[in-house]
Amino acid sequence: MTMVKRDTYTPESLLAVAVEVFNERGYDGTSMEHLSRAAGISKSSIYHHVKGKEELLRRAISRALDGLFGILQEPGARDGRAIERLEHVTRRTAEVLMAELPYVTLLLRVRGNTDTERWAMERRREFDHQVADLLKRAAADGDLRTDVDARLATRLLFGMINSIVEWYRPGRGGAAGADEVAEAVVRTAFAGLRVPTN
Amino acid sequence: MTMVKRDTYTPESLLAVAVEVFNERGYDGTSMEHLSRAAGISKSSIYHHVKGKEELLRRAISRALDGLFGILQEPGARDGRAIERLEHVTRRTAEVLMAELPYVTLLLRVRGNTDTERWAMERRREFDHQVADLLKRAAADGDLRTDVDARLATRLLFGMINSIVEWYRPGRGGAAGADEVAEAVVRTAFAGLRVPTN
Repeated sequence: MTMVKRDTYTPESLLAVAVEVFNERGYDGTSMEHLSRAAGISKSSIYHHVKGKEELLRRAISRALDGLFGILQEPGARDGRAIERLEHVTRRTAEVLMAELPYVTLLLRVRGNTDTERWAMERRREFDHQVADLLKRAAADGDLRTDVDARLATRLLFGMINSIVEWYRPGRGGAAGADEVAEAVVRTAFAGLRVPTN
Repeated sequence: MTMVKRDTYTPESLLAVAVEVFNERGYDGTSMEHLSRAAGISKSSIYHHVKGKEELLRRAISRALDGLFGILQEPGARDGRAIERLEHVTRRTAEVLMAELPYVTLLLRVRGNTDTERWAMERRREFDHQVADLLKRAAADGDLRTDVDARLATRLLFGMINSIVEWYRPGRGGAAGADEVAEAVVRTAFAGLRVPTN
């Protein structure tokens, strides 16, 4: 028998439960029944909050995207030399990823079968393109090495940042904190791990 | 009606079909029925080749692991300064990943529910540990920057390399070739994207 509790969910707390289930089972593999069981409230109580699981997906993805696109509006992303703006965006993207870990994880895993999923993928590509543009500008300024193709560099940069979702867990004892991880990403990507030989 | 063709499969060509299905549907989500349909031969024909889907998984994972562990036996991985060996292993890991793309993709996606999956994850961790040891040795030699933690550096390095499976497709026109990608990984990870300021 499933324990049914009183529905004391806020939109945010219900969303947090849904995102956890989406990340565990995949969005496609999640039914309203799964959400109801994980939340411990009836399906009709969930329908009291939202129209269905696609609305939960849209809200969760919006939260991740708002965080990411917000970075591009920050002074550090808008003012100054392109290379400095690129480093700012890199650091802040890693930070937002860790601060909004389940939401960004969901965004990165979505594979478009519904309108909401396709929209999520398109917005994610748009973010990547804006960062790629910044990278091209920094290259044009002569601040980036020319022997790595800009498109390839963008992919490797995002590959490094996005891989954080695979292992970063906030508050895990003895592990690196978010600040240290973000700083390590910036140092590794822009200055490299090797001590300069000259 | 499913078209059934004559069974002209070799162990290798049947494995290639199975790995494609595993990567598409996930290993858990793949049944012998799915494999039979994808291969266009009956289930009993498949059983003529292998005991079941777990044997196909084990063979596919072995192929990826043989490629990866083989790197550690190469002269470039065994002789010389740790930093040079680490760069060799990084380049070759990226190359093996691209040469054995579907097999390494499967290895990276496996999440242990069966003995074979747990074995795969353990062997993968063992490979990561051997690379992490090399990284620590290079740091002890004074060849790696000390302001990025060795464990974190290992994770970011593999994050960058492993992300290649998300977008690299061999022979895609106009895209970077495997040599260029492997070289870009080594340059980005060890020398960084930024032009040195001094």
